[in-house]
Amino acid sequence: MKILLINPNTTEALTELLSEAARSVLPPDTTLDSVTAAVGVPYISTRTEAIVGGMSVLEILSERHADYDAAIVAAFGDPGIGAARELFDIPVVGLAEAGMLTACMLGGRFSIVTFAQALGPWYRECVDWHGLGGRCASIRMLNGAFRSISDVQCEKADLLVDLAMQAIEQDGADVIVLAGAPLSGLAPMVRDRIPVPVVDCAQAALRHAATLAALRPVGPQKGSFARPAAKASVGLPKALALRIAHKDCA
Amino acid sequence: MKILLINPNTTEALTELLSEAARSVLPPDTTLDSVTAAVGVPYISTRTEAIVGGMSVLEILSERHADYDAAIVAAFGDPGIGAARELFDIPVVGLAEAGMLTACMLGGRFSIVTFAQALGPWYRECVDWHGLGGRCASIRMLNGAFRSISDVQCEKADLLVDLAMQAIEQDGADVIVLAGAPLSGLAPMVRDRIPVPVVDCAQAALRHAATLAALRPVGPQKGSFARPAAKASVGLPKALALRIAHKDCA
Amino acid sequence: MKILLINPNTTEALTELLSEAARSVLPPDTTLDSVTAAVGVPYISTRTEAIVGGMSVLEILSERHADYDAAIVAAFGDPGIGAARELFDIPVVGLAEAGMLTACMLGGRFSIVTFAQALGPWYRECVDWHGLGGRCASIRMLNGAFRSISDVQCEKADLLVDLAMQAIEQDGADVIVLAGAPLSGLAPMVRDRIPVPVVDCAQAALRHAATLAALRPVGPQKGSFARPAAKASVGLPKALALRIAHKDCA
Amino acid sequence: MKILLINPNTTEALTELLSEAARSVLPPDTTLDSVTAAVGVPYISTRTEAIVGGMSVLEILSERHADYDAAIVAAFGDPGIGAARELFDIPVVGLAEAGMLTACMLGGRFSIVTFAQALGPWYRECVDWHGLGGRCASIRMLNGAFRSISDVQCEKADLLVDLAMQAIEQDGADVIVLAGAPLSGLAPMVRDRIPVPVVDCAQAALRHAATLAALRPVGPQKGSFARPAAKASVGLPKALALRIAHKDCA
Amino acid sequence: MKILLINPNTTEALTELLSEAARSVLPPDTTLDSVTAAVGVPYISTRTEAIVGGMSVLEILSERHADYDAAIVAAFGDPGIGAARELFDIPVVGLAEAGMLTACMLGGRFSIVTFAQALGPWYRECVDWHGLGGRCASIRMLNGAFRSISDVQCEKADLLVDLAMQAIEQDGADVIVLAGAPLSGLAPMVRDRIPVPVVDCAQAALRHAATLAALRPVGPQKGSFARPAAKASVGLPKALALRIAHKDCA
Amino acid sequence: MKILLINPNTTEALTELLSEAARSVLPPDTTLDSVTAAVGVPYISTRTEAIVGGMSVLEILSERHADYDAAIVAAFGDPGIGAARELFDIPVVGLAEAGMLTACMLGGRFSIVTFAQALGPWYRECVDWHGLGGRCASIRMLNGAFRSISDVQCEKADLLVDLAMQAIEQDGADVIVLAGAPLSGLAPMVRDRIPVPVVDCAQAALRHAATLAALRPVGPQKGSFARPAAKASVGLPKALALRIAHKDCA
Repeated sequence: MKILLINPNTTEALTELLSEAARSVLPPDTTLDSVTAAVGVPYISTRTEAIVGGMSVLEILSERHADYDAAIVAAFGDPGIGAARELFDIPVVGLAEAGMLTACMLGGRFSIVTFAQALGPWYRECVDWHGLGGRCASIRMLNGAFRSISDVQCEKADLLVDLAMQAIEQDGADVIVLAGAPLSGLAPMVRDRIPVPVVDCAQAALRHAATLAALRPVGPQKGSFARPAAKASVGLPKALALRIAHKDCA
Repeated sequence: MKILLINPNTTEALTELLSEAARSVLPPDTTLDSVTAAVGVPYISTRTEAIVGGMSVLEILSERHADYDAAIVAAFGDPGIGAARELFDIPVVGLAEAGMLTACMLGGRFSIVTFAQALGPWYRECVDWHGLGGRCASIRMLNGAFRSISDVQCEKADLLVDLAMQAIEQDGADVIVLAGAPLSGLAPMVRDRIPVPVVDCAQAALRHAATLAALRPVGPQKGSFARPAAKASVGLPKALALRIAHKDCA
Repeated sequence: MKILLINPNTTEALTELLSEAARSVLPPDTTLDSVTAAVGVPYISTRTEAIVGGMSVLEILSERHADYDAAIVAAFGDPGIGAARELFDIPVVGLAEAGMLTACMLGGRFSIVTFAQALGPWYRECVDWHGLGGRCASIRMLNGAFRSISDVQCEKADLLVDLAMQAIEQDGADVIVLAGAPLSGLAPMVRDRIPVPVVDCAQAALRHAATLAALRPVGPQKGSFARPAAKASVGLPKALALRIAHKDCA
Repeated sequence: MKILLINPNTTEALTELLSEAARSVLPPDTTLDSVTAAVGVPYISTRTEAIVGGMSVLEILSERHADYDAAIVAAFGDPGIGAARELFDIPVVGLAEAGMLTACMLGGRFSIVTFAQALGPWYRECVDWHGLGGRCASIRMLNGAFRSISDVQCEKADLLVDLAMQAIEQDGADVIVLAGAPLSGLAPMVRDRIPVPVVDCAQAALRHAATLAALRPVGPQKGSFARPAAKASVGLPKALALRIAHKDCA
Repeated sequence: MKILLINPNTTEALTELLSEAARSVLPPDTTLDSVTAAVGVPYISTRTEAIVGGMSVLEILSERHADYDAAIVAAFGDPGIGAARELFDIPVVGLAEAGMLTACMLGGRFSIVTFAQALGPWYRECVDWHGLGGRCASIRMLNGAFRSISDVQCEKADLLVDLAMQAIEQDGADVIVLAGAPLSGLAPMVRDRIPVPVVDCAQAALRHAATLAALRPVGPQKGSFARPAAKASVGLPKALALRIAHKDCA
Repeated sequence: MKILLINPNTTEALTELLSEAARSVLPPDTTLDSVTAAVGVPYISTRTEAIVGGMSVLEILSERHADYDAAIVAAFGDPGIGAARELFDIPVVGLAEAGMLTACMLGGRFSIVTFAQALGPWYRECVDWHGLGGRCASIRMLNGAFRSISDVQCEKADLLVDLAMQAIEQDGADVIVLAGAPLSGLAPMVRDRIPVPVVDCAQAALRHAATLAALRPVGPQKGSFARPAAKASVGLPKALALRIAHKDCA
């Protein structure tokens, strides 16, 4: 099975972090490729940037979906996940979705713990879109600036552990989801300091993508994610325009 | 007061329909301009196209927001509404939002009635995003093809009235929201044939935009819609990149 | 267009406060009259008093609805709003409803901020009746007595600003709704001290009433707000009894 | 223990029906008095009439509460129940509340079955006010006119049994609540024809009122139902005005 | 009427506490028997123990249901209540259910106050199973060990009153439910120290069981609690196996 | 990694069906053992039997958990899943949970399709326990008897496909979950006849169990699933009693 990890952020170092975490749980029969968005912002953290990132996800999938059995949208708010699911036949898993659904199997309610205030509103909308508000005990975010997006997990590890402890003790979290591509790989390093299960979203996403590929679901011809009818467009990236027009090969 | 109506579809004829309906309820102290998206699809009806349309909304607002007191996102699913609200200081109202909130003042539960099956899933997500699921009795959509997007309201008027009657009698709708830019202006023409209030979203949006402009709210410096911090980007439309970077004049 | 503002409290000074705030955003083509309840309490703040106030609203509307294009129930808990909507053909807007729906267009979640503990339970029931619990971040009320109901907004302005700040910082409010007829006109005076949009309910209600009048919805003949069949009664105010009996002129 | 059954309808024959049903399950140590509203409509079925009925309940309780250990608001939509609970120290139970809570102990979800379309909207608001929407499978109402409010249960018995069967088979009802004062006493007569438990609300209300009296709860001095502070009023029924003013003896 | 109180805990002293509280409100025409589980744990407080307790409830009811008009599952989480309700024809009331539904008649939202942290998760699941999450202001539990399960109400009375006060003041509780079989009989002793109604669950359960017996509902032949078809089994307690196989006498 | 599949039904043939389906997607580095309940019923389908099955799950896990990295509760209603999760340190996945969470990654709303009416009520409670009611479009069950529990999937395959089509067309299902151990392995055989993704729960459960084992979460020492304190018991299966008493080796 071949899986494509799509980093909708433009920062290559994040793609490496994500891939490394994902590879640590790669099943023997699976291969992983990754790609970094060429257009957008270094690190998506707002509703505006989620639209920008969603466009990148759709463009990349239009170009490359035919070569893969499943794909991962590797930013926590899952930009473009619904669109990707309706437009392509292969399973597509979001980083947030994968982390949250994994948490659901490890306890009753989970808390999302992340490194920057700016991420909260977008994450909340993502939780709601997935219909998991009832399972989410809280979203907790660190205050304060950070030095570098690719290094924030080292810089803030201790503070994130403290924040997780607050989520457990004050919000009733049964599970901690460390959220955001820049925290990929952190969960295994801090799990012994946190007294409930801690989920690494990149690990979870890789495994779930492999699971969906293994289950080989047929792409929907009916229902709310059936592929839309062909449509003309103006000014869109070429591969995406062809996909929307049903003029791609797939 | 100056209001900008943004049609995120690329069809000029829809912009005219929308403007005409809006102008029919223009308060004396208000002026209305309109603009049609240069990039995208003739008529947005999917999650994919909502992302595309959201980009157009953001680009257009980046270029023109400084000249207006309020803006309207004139497609029923309100593409980019959350992003627009966090990125700009002027009030921005969505077509769906305006129609649904108006309906809330005219009865208990409303039904959304529209002309094409393809619109259902996106509209449902829009209702949920606005937190109005409890007020929505149903979303009803016509089956069957239509000849022309700019003429669909004439072609389908009788069928839409029938569909509204089903929503009233079978789903318990107190109010009908005729949904979709192509239906702009239809409500006043069919209201005598429907035994509950019928909302024209373009009319509602114009009035609510004027209301918000009149109330002159201060743009948020706190809360989930406070303007995000400046950020660099790659490959975005110029005006949008400048706005995201806090390098525009506003 | 002619709008009637009904103050279900018996305090004339509140009617003046409400009217002044409403007039500050009056569209050029609209006129506003107001009326104060002759029966009831100086200031409604309990479930009991809401029933009393609801009776006054129904009696006043029975006498005067035929002369207006829309009406406002000018107490925050919207006493009698559902009954008024089923009994009369003109649109009727509640102060709470108008404030909350306006807030919905300005952010994600709003907090209701008011001047007395006693108001909380009734306001909570009002939020729930409108199906807006998911959009309401909190209801915050000042402790402590106040000198005069018609002067409480001056006396408590600073404390109300503080309370709004708590709602923003602790409850995650994106918008503040200053609630209660006695706070009419305060929002424009304190909005520069509060870093999110602040809604004045009297202003909002006036504008929404004018909007509904402009949209000219047909009164419902079906649905849950269709006018009930004629019925006899004993001991009710004369105009109300005639309206219930379908023996009024309208 | 002494219990007062308050019929907020003005029809004496309904008071007799209600009392007879209630008396059929009267515990040996309990006595029951009843009273019929002097003001209002023969049979409450709308939001407007619920306000009128609520006034009657408050007036009657103001006059007579001191002589009783508990009271019953004997109309299915429980007019004035919240107000009664905040204004008086004795427990007050509503007909709808009693029927629905009893149903909750007999199955998972209940359906409300009643004899007239007009009752639906008010009943739905009552279910929601009690927070029991998740337990309510449906509200089913007969179409068609009836001859006499005091005889409707005989006239419509067969149709009501049919309607109950539909609720069981199509809506998944585990329990049937026969709703409306005019159906008091019907449940025991038709229960052998309905294959799930059937609740008589008057019976349930009598028993719950006796239970609350037996438990002797202290009236709330805190919380949302604590008695409001004394307040002046104009034009209210004398006993009610005294109670609101804290000038009654109790 | 004959009622059976089933203590699914193995501690006889708790059965006595429960019976004594229940008897204090026994209607004159009712008799009460009680039984203590022979298998299980001294005091149920976890999900695991709820399954164990549920088995005991089913075994005891299989042996004894034919002699009673109603039964009480006398542990706060209501172990086995759904199973008991589907397997037997007599009404079965849970301790939690009885306490919570009583609280619903005494105010808007209740808080559950209990003596040990361990009980929280199970109680929360119980609240949700009954669909009463919207009426539950909070579940508050004491920290710290206790000396003896049969004496904990004396030892902790003052702390429980303090905890109730916190629920009232911080969580907005209108009613306090003292939860857990070991607190049976405590409510009447502390009610004068708590400024809102306080519910004793054993008292409430006895009264509700008597009420259901008085209403004489027919056991369901349809719906989700209709008795399941006969089935063979292996290794179950004899009476339970016979009941499941439809080979018991009832 | 070693995974234990626990069939809480007493039918060996179901264990074989479950194992075969699970093995079809076994990752190369994983082994699967299975065990059939010695106590209980041939096929669990009621609330009563869920308690019986939950006891079997706990007894089996008490005996064997130390030899495995993860376990599967292989009956659709997930009997004992919460108890197992609090009592043991290894991850435990339920058949229903695995199927539903997989469906969540393949579409918006799923329908549960199964072969017998009797299963509906228990399945509904299972959906609610997992907090997935908002994602569940419907539960659809075949009417009519079946010949043999181990052969029902062959006998009813065509009818189940028809039922799935109804769920898609009438209930709006985006994904079909074929529910119940007896349907294990059916999904891959019928997926070409159903125009949306179809989930095999045994396959999904095997993959998710392997995923959780790969992620190696630390067992909770805090939160609602932390292992309960040691407790004595009477009459329980020996291994379970030792586990509850903290006297087992693990």
